Amino acid sequence: MGITIGLFGFGRTGSVVANEIINTPECELKWVVRKSQTHEGEFASRLLGHEHDEGRIYSSEADFDRLFKDSRVDVIIDFSTSGSVDAYKGAVKHGTRIVSAISNYEPKDLEHLKELASQTAVLYSPNITLGINFLIAASKVLQKIIPHADIEIVEEHFRDKKDVSGTALRIAEDLNLDKERCVNSVRVGGIIGKHEVIFGLPNQIIRITHESLSRAAFGQGAIYAAQWLMKKRKGLYTMEQALSIKLG
Amino acid sequence: MGITIGLFGFGRTGSVVANEIINTPECELKWVVRKSQTHEGEFASRLLGHEHDEGRIYSSEADFDRLFKDSRVDVIIDFSTSGSVDAYKGAVKHGTRIVSAISNYEPKDLEHLKELASQTAVLYSPNITLGINFLIAASKVLQKIIPHADIEIVEEHFRDKKDVSGTALRIAEDLNLDKERCVNSVRVGGIIGKHEVIFGLPNQIIRITHESLSRAAFGQGAIYAAQWLMKKRKGLYTMEQALSIKLG
Amino acid sequence: MGITIGLFGFGRTGSVVANEIINTPECELKWVVRKSQTHEGEFASRLLGHEHDEGRIYSSEADFDRLFKDSRVDVIIDFSTSGSVDAYKGAVKHGTRIVSAISNYEPKDLEHLKELASQTAVLYSPNITLGINFLIAASKVLQKIIPHADIEIVEEHFRDKKDVSGTALRIAEDLNLDKERCVNSVRVGGIIGKHEVIFGLPNQIIRITHESLSRAAFGQGAIYAAQWLMKKRKGLYTMEQALSIKLG
Amino acid sequence: MGITIGLFGFGRTGSVVANEIINTPECELKWVVRKSQTHEGEFASRLLGHEHDEGRIYSSEADFDRLFKDSRVDVIIDFSTSGSVDAYKGAVKHGTRIVSAISNYEPKDLEHLKELASQTAVLYSPNITLGINFLIAASKVLQKIIPHADIEIVEEHFRDKKDVSGTALRIAEDLNLDKERCVNSVRVGGIIGKHEVIFGLPNQIIRITHESLSRAAFGQGAIYAAQWLMKKRKGLYTMEQALSIKLG
Repeated sequence: MGITIGLFGFGRTGSVVANEIINTPECELKWVVRKSQTHEGEFASRLLGHEHDEGRIYSSEADFDRLFKDSRVDVIIDFSTSGSVDAYKGAVKHGTRIVSAISNYEPKDLEHLKELASQTAVLYSPNITLGINFLIAASKVLQKIIPHADIEIVEEHFRDKKDVSGTALRIAEDLNLDKERCVNSVRVGGIIGKHEVIFGLPNQIIRITHESLSRAAFGQGAIYAAQWLMKKRKGLYTMEQALSIKLG
Repeated sequence: MGITIGLFGFGRTGSVVANEIINTPECELKWVVRKSQTHEGEFASRLLGHEHDEGRIYSSEADFDRLFKDSRVDVIIDFSTSGSVDAYKGAVKHGTRIVSAISNYEPKDLEHLKELASQTAVLYSPNITLGINFLIAASKVLQKIIPHADIEIVEEHFRDKKDVSGTALRIAEDLNLDKERCVNSVRVGGIIGKHEVIFGLPNQIIRITHESLSRAAFGQGAIYAAQWLMKKRKGLYTMEQALSIKLG
Repeated sequence: MGITIGLFGFGRTGSVVANEIINTPECELKWVVRKSQTHEGEFASRLLGHEHDEGRIYSSEADFDRLFKDSRVDVIIDFSTSGSVDAYKGAVKHGTRIVSAISNYEPKDLEHLKELASQTAVLYSPNITLGINFLIAASKVLQKIIPHADIEIVEEHFRDKKDVSGTALRIAEDLNLDKERCVNSVRVGGIIGKHEVIFGLPNQIIRITHESLSRAAFGQGAIYAAQWLMKKRKGLYTMEQALSIKLG
Repeated sequence: MGITIGLFGFGRTGSVVANEIINTPECELKWVVRKSQTHEGEFASRLLGHEHDEGRIYSSEADFDRLFKDSRVDVIIDFSTSGSVDAYKGAVKHGTRIVSAISNYEPKDLEHLKELASQTAVLYSPNITLGINFLIAASKVLQKIIPHADIEIVEEHFRDKKDVSGTALRIAEDLNLDKERCVNSVRVGGIIGKHEVIFGLPNQIIRITHESLSRAAFGQGAIYAAQWLMKKRKGLYTMEQALSIKLG
């Protein structure tokens, strides 16, 4: 038997994540909550070109108490916006676990998410791909082995991406680097996302690089997180923990 | 107080290693054993352009019993050839530890090295740079996290390097890859040595790359190994173990 | 006024090319010829999610004589299969030019294509992206500047790509390299296509690399070729010529 | 018969350049001018470990009029400092050509160099490696082919290199890029020098990369320039011109 999943968010990334869940035999997408009422009552699977019904669509106006009870899921995966945490707090009393991939939480909402962790298992990671989390974990290990190495980060993204990559800033933070000086941002063409951490010693250079080929990588990371979380008791977890168990 | 070191091998790599040891304040190069009698009795330090005496040079015809006793060292580092193990087996009874970086051991000589491990601490690694060993260790971890990833290796070396890189073959072996199919060898110009392990998933690619800038990296790896070995009891160790203590 | 285009091929690549043509203001997609009769009479634009009519769909059973005359186009772009050349030979008497991107021509069909070049301007390139053709042209120039450089090619593609990249073989041929020895093929995950030409000298390395982010690059190359061809008289041209005019 | 060469500069780079000239059968190093009087009258070849006499050493106090006349050379190669131009201006009346690789000219000295170009053939390039000049030339060509591409530069050098790479700034200037925004500088470990120009389109990325493996590359570039200059009349030339003849 697989895991039942409810998804918050059905935008550019959310719909790709929904598709990944539908394509994973060990997972069942029970429902999707999106902001607007477009296609309410239809099935995400149909909108994504599948020939069966999976992932009934609800709007943010839905009766959540009833949804969480009548259509209980093992895990809620959240790719929507900061405020959704308040919508699904009622689900945890049914034993539902939470995977949140929100990248910019309002402090208040992040607080609420952490409160949920006293009742159920919650995993929160703004960088939910497996690869990026391996990149971070491996970089931290390498820094411990060669603490005197110089470290810089080069991140490359599509030309219209305004801000410095949050992932790059996170890596810099985890490695105690000067964010201003050590993060180099390249903005050209249609690059989906590339992060490279460069370790320099006098006589050797080590590079760890992650390239995203499509947004489906987010879905795969979230599914991995959901599966890992099923074996966990209540508490707040990170993606890195989900991976580092195997790092030891 | 530092570590006293005796070095076997003073060829292209050995002399660079000697120089690294001399340049490391925590280490003292007591002597060097080279095959020929050239410069016997002189000091390696002088030949390398230093202004002080360090590392008296002995030939392979020297009276080793006397050398190992009268000029006892904490660690012997071996960058010479397969057969040297028989020359320094007498040193272990004085508590001397062994770091061997020989890349192509005769089976018989490797057997002898292993026998020494029943009397002292021996670390053996044909790829003694920190970076290469991190590359191997991190690749194994990543393969555990994403066992379904496709993996290939690209190694680049100077045009005259005949064989496939032993390091690349070792990585392939450690990752259970088909050596024929998964190791790609590029031979151009004066590249000192570059190894890249590529992990492919449907939607993301992770690369771990190591580039050698100079042979001095071997010396630094050997010194790291020697320092680590000082805290170890008798037994046979690998470079990976020396690093993985910190990987855990 | 822009260019009117007829497209042969509406499969995986053809439909992406159609979309690129529709999105280019200087081009009008008058019709599309596909093998099957599916969606015959409908508009490619609608199938691709646009809200206007552009690119009426015909099957390979259509009355081509009438189509080429009544719905004359400036350029036919061919992303279908080897045999289509016989279907559109009647178009050239109306002054229609031809851009063919067929990668594996039957010798007989390639012969027919060349015959058309005695009547109209024909550009044929199995590698129709701008980038790949720059890669080839620049590599040839660099080889002339440094004829003693060692050269190797690394091509990376998705795991299921069976053959060695035709583009890589073409580069090897153009540079007079031993195809067996100098082309290295990596097959991992979902890499769309990456080609790297490495030039090695004793003291410096030059790399020219091309990465495809999506198949739309083919459409852009074909449109560039079509626009360039509008200024040409009858004859057979290559993509390289279309670019090398500016290389001089 | 080969080319006779006089060299100004015998520091870190100059001595490597001298060695390259000595190793090139088509060139003869007649003399070397260095700032100090150290080793005056000895031969550069001996100091560099060769077993024959080549490249007699003069100090900057030497009688240049006599040197240039009695020991006339085909080409003077200058890897010293800004002011040397005044020392060798007397050589041009003997038909000696000039290759200057000074990276930071005082305006006044650069003016003097240009004046010499009215009497002999002078090639001036602050980036005298073949590879860097190919990088620049190819980048300019590519920008003409795809003028709408986004372009950024990543340059990597050893940790102690203070300034932004002059070569990177030169590339940015030649491509009309915003130097502040488009040049990314990585400073880690012992990287000798790497420059990458990244061209981004919506669906494809092209990278041209140059890596220096050793300073000998400067010598090879200077020798190439000297050989090319032998066929030129008086005038001021650039390294790019020396290469672009073959680009056409």
